[in-house]
Amino acid sequence: MSSLLSTIESPADVKKLTMPELLQLAEEIRERLIRSVAKTGGHIGPNLGVVELTLAMHFVFDTPKDSFVFDVSHQAYVHKLLTGREKRFDTIRQPGGLNGFMLRTESEHDSFGAGHAGTALSAALGMAVARDRSGGSEHIVALAGDAAFTCGISYEALNNIASQTRRMIIVLNDNAWSIDKNVGAIASYFHKIVTHPSFRYLHERATSLIERFGGKAASHVARKAEESVKGLLGPSMLFEEFGLDYYGPIDGHDLPLLIQTFQFLKTQNRPVILHAITQKGKGFQPALDKQKKFHGLGPYDPDTGETVAAGQKTYSEVFAETLVKLADGDDKVVAITAAMPNGTALDLFRPHHPTRYFDVGIAEEHAVIFAAGMATKGYRPFVAIYSTFLQRAFDPIVHDVALQNLPVAFCMDRGSLSGDDGPTHHGLFDISYLRCVPNLVHMVPKDEDELADMMQTALAHPGPSAIRYPRGTGPGTTLKAKPEALAIGRAEILQDGTDIAILGLGALLPLAWDMARRLEQQGFSVAVINPRFVKPIDRDTVEHYGRGCGLVVTFEDHVLAGGFGSAVLETLSAAEITTPVVRIGWPDEFVDHGKVEALRQKYGVTVERAMELAQPHLQALEHRRLVTHQ
Amino acid sequence: MSSLLSTIESPADVKKLTMPELLQLAEEIRERLIRSVAKTGGHIGPNLGVVELTLAMHFVFDTPKDSFVFDVSHQAYVHKLLTGREKRFDTIRQPGGLNGFMLRTESEHDSFGAGHAGTALSAALGMAVARDRSGGSEHIVALAGDAAFTCGISYEALNNIASQTRRMIIVLNDNAWSIDKNVGAIASYFHKIVTHPSFRYLHERATSLIERFGGKAASHVARKAEESVKGLLGPSMLFEEFGLDYYGPIDGHDLPLLIQTFQFLKTQNRPVILHAITQKGKGFQPALDKQKKFHGLGPYDPDTGETVAAGQKTYSEVFAETLVKLADGDDKVVAITAAMPNGTALDLFRPHHPTRYFDVGIAEEHAVIFAAGMATKGYRPFVAIYSTFLQRAFDPIVHDVALQNLPVAFCMDRGSLSGDDGPTHHGLFDISYLRCVPNLVHMVPKDEDELADMMQTALAHPGPSAIRYPRGTGPGTTLKAKPEALAIGRAEILQDGTDIAILGLGALLPLAWDMARRLEQQGFSVAVINPRFVKPIDRDTVEHYGRGCGLVVTFEDHVLAGGFGSAVLETLSAAEITTPVVRIGWPDEFVDHGKVEALRQKYGVTVERAMELAQPHLQALEHRRLVTHQ
Repeated sequence: MSSLLSTIESPADVKKLTMPELLQLAEEIRERLIRSVAKTGGHIGPNLGVVELTLAMHFVFDTPKDSFVFDVSHQAYVHKLLTGREKRFDTIRQPGGLNGFMLRTESEHDSFGAGHAGTALSAALGMAVARDRSGGSEHIVALAGDAAFTCGISYEALNNIASQTRRMIIVLNDNAWSIDKNVGAIASYFHKIVTHPSFRYLHERATSLIERFGGKAASHVARKAEESVKGLLGPSMLFEEFGLDYYGPIDGHDLPLLIQTFQFLKTQNRPVILHAITQKGKGFQPALDKQKKFHGLGPYDPDTGETVAAGQKTYSEVFAETLVKLADGDDKVVAITAAMPNGTALDLFRPHHPTRYFDVGIAEEHAVIFAAGMATKGYRPFVAIYSTFLQRAFDPIVHDVALQNLPVAFCMDRGSLSGDDGPTHHGLFDISYLRCVPNLVHMVPKDEDELADMMQTALAHPGPSAIRYPRGTGPGTTLKAKPEALAIGRAEILQDGTDIAILGLGALLPLAWDMARRLEQQGFSVAVINPRFVKPIDRDTVEHYGRGCGLVVTFEDHVLAGGFGSAVLETLSAAEITTPVVRIGWPDEFVDHGKVEALRQKYGVTVERAMELAQPHLQALEHRRLVTHQ
Repeated sequence: MSSLLSTIESPADVKKLTMPELLQLAEEIRERLIRSVAKTGGHIGPNLGVVELTLAMHFVFDTPKDSFVFDVSHQAYVHKLLTGREKRFDTIRQPGGLNGFMLRTESEHDSFGAGHAGTALSAALGMAVARDRSGGSEHIVALAGDAAFTCGISYEALNNIASQTRRMIIVLNDNAWSIDKNVGAIASYFHKIVTHPSFRYLHERATSLIERFGGKAASHVARKAEESVKGLLGPSMLFEEFGLDYYGPIDGHDLPLLIQTFQFLKTQNRPVILHAITQKGKGFQPALDKQKKFHGLGPYDPDTGETVAAGQKTYSEVFAETLVKLADGDDKVVAITAAMPNGTALDLFRPHHPTRYFDVGIAEEHAVIFAAGMATKGYRPFVAIYSTFLQRAFDPIVHDVALQNLPVAFCMDRGSLSGDDGPTHHGLFDISYLRCVPNLVHMVPKDEDELADMMQTALAHPGPSAIRYPRGTGPGTTLKAKPEALAIGRAEILQDGTDIAILGLGALLPLAWDMARRLEQQGFSVAVINPRFVKPIDRDTVEHYGRGCGLVVTFEDHVLAGGFGSAVLETLSAAEITTPVVRIGWPDEFVDHGKVEALRQKYGVTVERAMELAQPHLQALEHRRLVTHQ
């Protein structure tokens, strides 16, 4: 069988294919996805689910003139394969390769980038309104999963769509999954539509719909509509109450039906939503068997789906296991996740305390306010949200938690680089955006055992707190049997010294040690400090070493603007100490995807850079040391 | 007529009253609200609308055992009058007096504070789940206006309520208004329910409802239900699809009906929503005539409703008028507000360019992503959102706008103190939370004309930008006929000097001048600088004066943690300049409500404080000056 996929240079080539060729292309795409992502890792399940949807969209619409907005956009691999990136597809998520999400700078076919959920309807409405104002005729198509409807922004957009544009197409890609099984009323509601054969109003509406269809497409859809329960065309009161015309649910893997439906929807002069039922992982048995695992993952065996067995425990796992301990000892401890039980490892907590586990959907704002509500009644919520996603809840953190000084603990996984996922997922801002919030304690552990201690600290503290920890594994420290609360605002002096003080925050503590060793070889006396607390910062320690030493160095896995080093500068300045400070952290730009070590080299988050910046001060120190030691 | 209101020491006293007495109390409360708020200013309209609702709630429920969560909580005045704060009510929003919102530290009857919209359902659900877990029997009642349902968080909560608790009461206080007329599909939808006499399913459902009521209450409700269109009891598909039992709409000023309905709802073992129709400003003709004006305002004449005629133009007005000019000259300029056309003054823009004005509801996240979508199609959105409310959109600013480097301009009104509204409304964090965001230009004007120039700068700049300006009036500068774009990242040197450099950001520039005059009297040569740009900061200027002077002083109307002074420290540190810096700004705590000048004195945002902090450095400078000048 010749490869059709390799001949697709642009969507124009898709449009030339016959239906049998399109069906063959779909198979080739599936095979390619399974083989390619097996090597690179990535969001295999979601992409296998949208092969036909994406093919049908490119067959009917015309990007880049028309715009596709994909929610989260982790399901854009098929789109990438069809829009001139097939040759480079094996580089996806690899350093220097294709990004794993839509990226405006990567292709003119990527009209809107994303990585966080729930933005597609809003962005698409902006485009539709712009098109209307400019008198354009292009189509705006938003593709959003069912989980996007657990996120409030989607409703904010729904509230505006019908009153602001007459032409916009929403595709509800319903696979009943977020990363985990989707939750809440919306999930039940979609399920009810899909499974209820006598869905209200069905016949009346289906008839009128068929009348409006006309022609061949209509008869095809009408026939399809009567073939199966899942192929029924009925209205959804929910969407209709928001002023949208609802079509569906239809089989999202029936390519001819999808093409004809899109051809019909193109002609509509009302905002429409098409409810397509898809199967996450379609065509790859391991992914169908383990949907959660195959949402997004590292490399795997393309035949069996086997992945390398996990070795050392990740920070996420340590977090979850520690939370089990805390919950064992205190029945007010509860765990909250915003649709990330797997990523945060709270799925390890759930079986231990099923009634104290809350997955609220992709609803970070609600998660935080819900936690605040529980805290007013004496509960101790631990809210596990990635650093980057917690940006969504910044206002609730300020307005609902910190202002009321409620004891909610934010456990910020992926605090630092996300690596392969890239700039939408890096968690490099949380120190800056939280450091200005009164009442909030902000902690960063140096290793797994300290993470456990910090969780105990959060539990012992009567106000709000946040702990950031990186993706993946740490140094592999053995945990004490029972975590111990730390003294709040107290740093850990790992090594005393008189010439230079190095503060190595969290995951960058090893860099502090490395630098210390180098400086010691030059004859300097170097203090090495584990700051532990970004806020309240250990003023005494910072002032002591600021006064006593001739140079202070800070390492942080965070942007420098407003970060931990900035807090050190503020502390020294407030104490009228003018000792120079060398700050190492991420620069004021969005960081690409790639491997952590390579990115550190590229952006200068290294001991070498620290030594370079320290150099001008070392001579003065040398002089001082000679004077002092004489 | 004897005063009943003065005898109400707690809700227990409300429960003792007869119906005629309750009706008299309602009248007394209205009179008191009108007279009292005439002197203090405040949210008169919303509170006049909830007199009967609040009375009925306190008659039926039992706070603090039961919990009331009021959305935004600007409508809690009646609640305050009934919960032991009647004697102090005339101090509301006054320095040292009652807060204008619910405040947990003010009363045990205030179970949850708020000031931003859309949080009530989430907080109440947290309380309900906590109650369920603890085996409690208390009631949780959330009161939310119709505008809360333009805010996504409410839907995030709705998605979780039915699956997480069986007992929770939501009161939808529907007055068809946000601060302005409510917008979007939800507003039309509520309107449809209220005005459609043959609302679908009405009779079938009303009957079953009456059957379930039983007793006297039921017959009363049933009778009421048939009396008027507005009194109909019908289901709402929207809420029922979220798994809630819907009751209403009922007349929210019919006290006996409300009491009986709440008595019924108390007995339900399902989460319920009661749709009550109220009139904002009920009982005060000027407020009924001008609902927008009387949402919240300063002092007025209690008989006529007249307020003092506005004098000098506010920053908001200058913003709106300038935006009209920019839009006149560039048809890609559009204006976006999140339900604050009055507060942001965009209602002055609207008549000039009605099709380029977008009120998206209380939906800050959507507003920003919608703007990003328009920007991808060549439009230049100006998004006017208060500094404190823009916290809601932090993630869209990072993820949708800045990461994609889209030219969206954020016009942050109320950047600094809100004054009487207090900590929920102060805008003291935007420099810290935005300074870490790559690509974003952050500007602060010294006066009205510079605000106009900065808006022109934003328009000329091909990337994202933010401008913060304070509430109320500025120095009253005359505007140039045509605003001019400023050089990005360039400060304005107002006066050169060699001993001390003072950077006075925005509204605090007069403090810089004041300090300069004092220092000059001591013989120092003082540079006075208007920084204009927080980001990118003017490195050349900061380094030049940092190197040349012996002391740098910064004034900012913002918290010190991560603020502008911190940016100056970072800049000097990066350039290896160790000149001491005195930073004046707000401390690391939530700031009370009160008058701006008094708060500045209380929290040390003063020239006196700056002089005090500068003192230790002045002697060294004195010495340096003598040496230099010899």
